[in-house]
Amino acid sequence: MAVIIKPSDIEQNSMSIISAELEARGETLPEETADVVRRVIHTTADFDYVDNLVFTENAVARGVEALSAGVDIVTDTNMAKAGVSKPALSHLGGRVQCFMADPIVVAMAKAEGTTRAVVAMRHAEQHCPDAVYAVGNAPTALLQLSEQIKAGMRPSLVIAVPVGFVNVVESKEELLAVCREHDVPAIVALGRKGGSNVAAAVCNALLYRASGLTDPEERNWKA
Amino acid sequence: MAVIIKPSDIEQNSMSIISAELEARGETLPEETADVVRRVIHTTADFDYVDNLVFTENAVARGVEALSAGVDIVTDTNMAKAGVSKPALSHLGGRVQCFMADPIVVAMAKAEGTTRAVVAMRHAEQHCPDAVYAVGNAPTALLQLSEQIKAGMRPSLVIAVPVGFVNVVESKEELLAVCREHDVPAIVALGRKGGSNVAAAVCNALLYRASGLTDPEERNWKA
Repeated sequence: MAVIIKPSDIEQNSMSIISAELEARGETLPEETADVVRRVIHTTADFDYVDNLVFTENAVARGVEALSAGVDIVTDTNMAKAGVSKPALSHLGGRVQCFMADPIVVAMAKAEGTTRAVVAMRHAEQHCPDAVYAVGNAPTALLQLSEQIKAGMRPSLVIAVPVGFVNVVESKEELLAVCREHDVPAIVALGRKGGSNVAAAVCNALLYRASGLTDPEERNWKA
Repeated sequence: MAVIIKPSDIEQNSMSIISAELEARGETLPEETADVVRRVIHTTADFDYVDNLVFTENAVARGVEALSAGVDIVTDTNMAKAGVSKPALSHLGGRVQCFMADPIVVAMAKAEGTTRAVVAMRHAEQHCPDAVYAVGNAPTALLQLSEQIKAGMRPSLVIAVPVGFVNVVESKEELLAVCREHDVPAIVALGRKGGSNVAAAVCNALLYRASGLTDPEERNWKA
């Protein structure tokens, strides 16, 4: 029978199980990216992410450096925003922002006949062009970001992990190619899988490394 | 190359692709549960949920009936709370509540040396014992709910979909057995998989059926 266990013990045991299963599968994760991959598996219980997650060179180190310097995180859903560790972020001086429900964004999207995600990315560039952009839902946000990067925008990192069946695979591949061409760090979940939970998990893996916070209850909820 | 497509078209196309792939796999979903299974696949791009999701008899119909009557939804994370469709819920008269960061819950968990999830479930029973309980994260919340149901609590529905490697499989099986014994409707993701995104997706499938809202932008964001 299951018993009540402290969150910190659950997390430690979970990570040990994940590491053991990866070893049993003969997978050796590069040290640079292991934290991120393990945390996404922890969030999804899905080992497909060992293969799906692709990192541009030094993407993790550059993301951690930016977050350590206090840059903001921009998400494309309030769900991803809710999942990002606020204590870790505030410890570092950054904020997490989502512009999808901003009245200006809503009105402009309606007027232009485009998606809120497209307008939200343009809006975000005006407020925090050097933020970490974490996109877990809208392929149109990635297509728009690709255009903005081609035009000169330089985010600190793009986390490109929308989930879905239409436009998703293509938008992630395009974003990855554009980021490589313009030396913008990117972490991309190739294929159909991803989501707001994955976007938040990647952010948190970087935030935990940058902040040094280790206790799950302390990281997830302000006391 | 990917182009910008309206969210409503993306969703319709996605659901068509999911239905076609299910057919190609020889899967026939029961009409009662098909909406829920398809929406979880839409949220995760993971067809494992065809097998993982288990429903007690009439769980969907009873959940839809309760939400139509305006019962609240209680979640165990702010992330799941953020993912539940507020327009659909407010159309029906219900609210979504998460007590995990409630100062009373935090203080009591600390005083008792137990998890916030345990105290949050007890606290929720005092406020809305007949709510739909959507648990996407904490196995301890499910173990606690199981005890409360044994003691007489009668939620309208329990959505039991935590993700993870420790205590998760066992807590979901126990909850399912307790719900069956006490005639409490339950929707359970057996095995390790699940998450706050899955919890929200199940809620939304029920809310969309109860409310009749069909346009994704209208359902996700208040105009």
